Amino acid sequence: MIIELAESYGFCFGVKRAIKIAEENSNSATYGPLIHNANEIARLKNDFNVALSENIDTFKAGQTAVIRTHGIPKQELSLLNERQVNVVDATCPYVTKPQQICEEMSAQGYDIIIFGDEAHPEIKGVKSYAVGNVFVVNSANEVADLHTREKVAVVAQTTRKIEEYQEIVAHLMGTHKEVRVFNTICNATFDNQDAVRKLAQKADVMIVIGGKNSSNTKQLQTISLNYCPDSYHIESRDDLEPEWFSGKKLCGISAGASTPDWIINEVIDKIKQLSSL
Amino acid sequence: MIIELAESYGFCFGVKRAIKIAEENSNSATYGPLIHNANEIARLKNDFNVALSENIDTFKAGQTAVIRTHGIPKQELSLLNERQVNVVDATCPYVTKPQQICEEMSAQGYDIIIFGDEAHPEIKGVKSYAVGNVFVVNSANEVADLHTREKVAVVAQTTRKIEEYQEIVAHLMGTHKEVRVFNTICNATFDNQDAVRKLAQKADVMIVIGGKNSSNTKQLQTISLNYCPDSYHIESRDDLEPEWFSGKKLCGISAGASTPDWIINEVIDKIKQLSSL
Repeated sequence: MIIELAESYGFCFGVKRAIKIAEENSNSATYGPLIHNANEIARLKNDFNVALSENIDTFKAGQTAVIRTHGIPKQELSLLNERQVNVVDATCPYVTKPQQICEEMSAQGYDIIIFGDEAHPEIKGVKSYAVGNVFVVNSANEVADLHTREKVAVVAQTTRKIEEYQEIVAHLMGTHKEVRVFNTICNATFDNQDAVRKLAQKADVMIVIGGKNSSNTKQLQTISLNYCPDSYHIESRDDLEPEWFSGKKLCGISAGASTPDWIINEVIDKIKQLSSL
Repeated sequence: MIIELAESYGFCFGVKRAIKIAEENSNSATYGPLIHNANEIARLKNDFNVALSENIDTFKAGQTAVIRTHGIPKQELSLLNERQVNVVDATCPYVTKPQQICEEMSAQGYDIIIFGDEAHPEIKGVKSYAVGNVFVVNSANEVADLHTREKVAVVAQTTRKIEEYQEIVAHLMGTHKEVRVFNTICNATFDNQDAVRKLAQKADVMIVIGGKNSSNTKQLQTISLNYCPDSYHIESRDDLEPEWFSGKKLCGISAGASTPDWIINEVIDKIKQLSSL
């Protein structure tokens, strides 16, 4: 069996940057998981003593809090600063961007519409920067129920699919005088999505590696399934099942934007073993 | 045979306004046709001595030039003012709006994209207000060939269909950081289009009245044809053919935004005659 990696996969610029920041701040703690990857978080804890706290009250004056790639709400950032916690910001610049847009556009009188998952930390953070009306929609179906003014500014969660974002904007255009659309979907997501689409079309079996709660990995898996019914979303080599590879000729591999290369390499080694059995 | 008028049809606010302005300025001339309706233009000439000149050089100091509903290029307006022509502006406010947007957005550094027909007077006018890069596209297919910067502002010809405008914006979103969309399609066009769609679904024969070179009438005819194959675009009662109504039960009537009521009434009277033969 041939194993082929997607042309683009795995860690994006923002994740690489955040890990570097965390490694440079040993003996600190991240406020919430730095990235959506439990294995990498364990590695940072073991190798650099970068802990993880979900409770903001655990950060005391003089301690270092590393802000996760997804960002945190503005109010929580203010609280950490007020408490004289040493804040090290590892928010992905592609997430800082929609936060800034939200703040600027709502200050300019636009109602803000965010395309994303209201429960996702990135969106909680972005939303907190709006100073006026702000609405979160998870699909085009939800647009009709919005009661917005006639000028709206729109941003998207960085990991969303452009097709759905286009659909949302199309709906908004029909009912608003001005729709100011910011394409905040990040290129890394585009690149990984394009590559998985291409590879899944020729592969017999696809392995998509990433955290089970990682939005962008789930998107890759969804795209992969459209072209290759034997697509599996796994977190590590331990999730692999030997029968997946039985009789297959080409195994495609992709990985979410939070998946480190060492996990991908472990998966590839294991697949080689399994397919040679 | 029953004759039913669409719930919304005919003259829009901008056209009614322009005719009123022309009637208040007898013994003047319009620069280019005031509206796309030869019959109404003839009436203004006969009843109010409002002439029509296609040549800007015919307007001399002290004479009155009525600016057509579609607007004129900024440079021509300046020329008339320089020559001390008395300029009376009958440009539809819904056309003035995209002109202003074009001017403001290009001053703010946006590349301007106009969805419309480059040869149409409205678009010639709107385009002339851009101070930087400006591109006119007539369909979504033309978007891929544009070489724009990453921030674009988009306006549409007032008479365009929202579905095509949505398609253009969808394309732009994929390749631009910011797409600032102004919905400059006018509500009158929406209303007349919605009404013709509704009526054509139940009518056996549809009569769509308006100038042969009127974009919005052509749009109404296209929509009508989608639902009622026996749809006819006519300019006046003289274009009616008796056989269109043979064996029909419901005749629907719509009219373009430049079609006056007196023409519509003449058409209805003639259809009544023809269907009672």
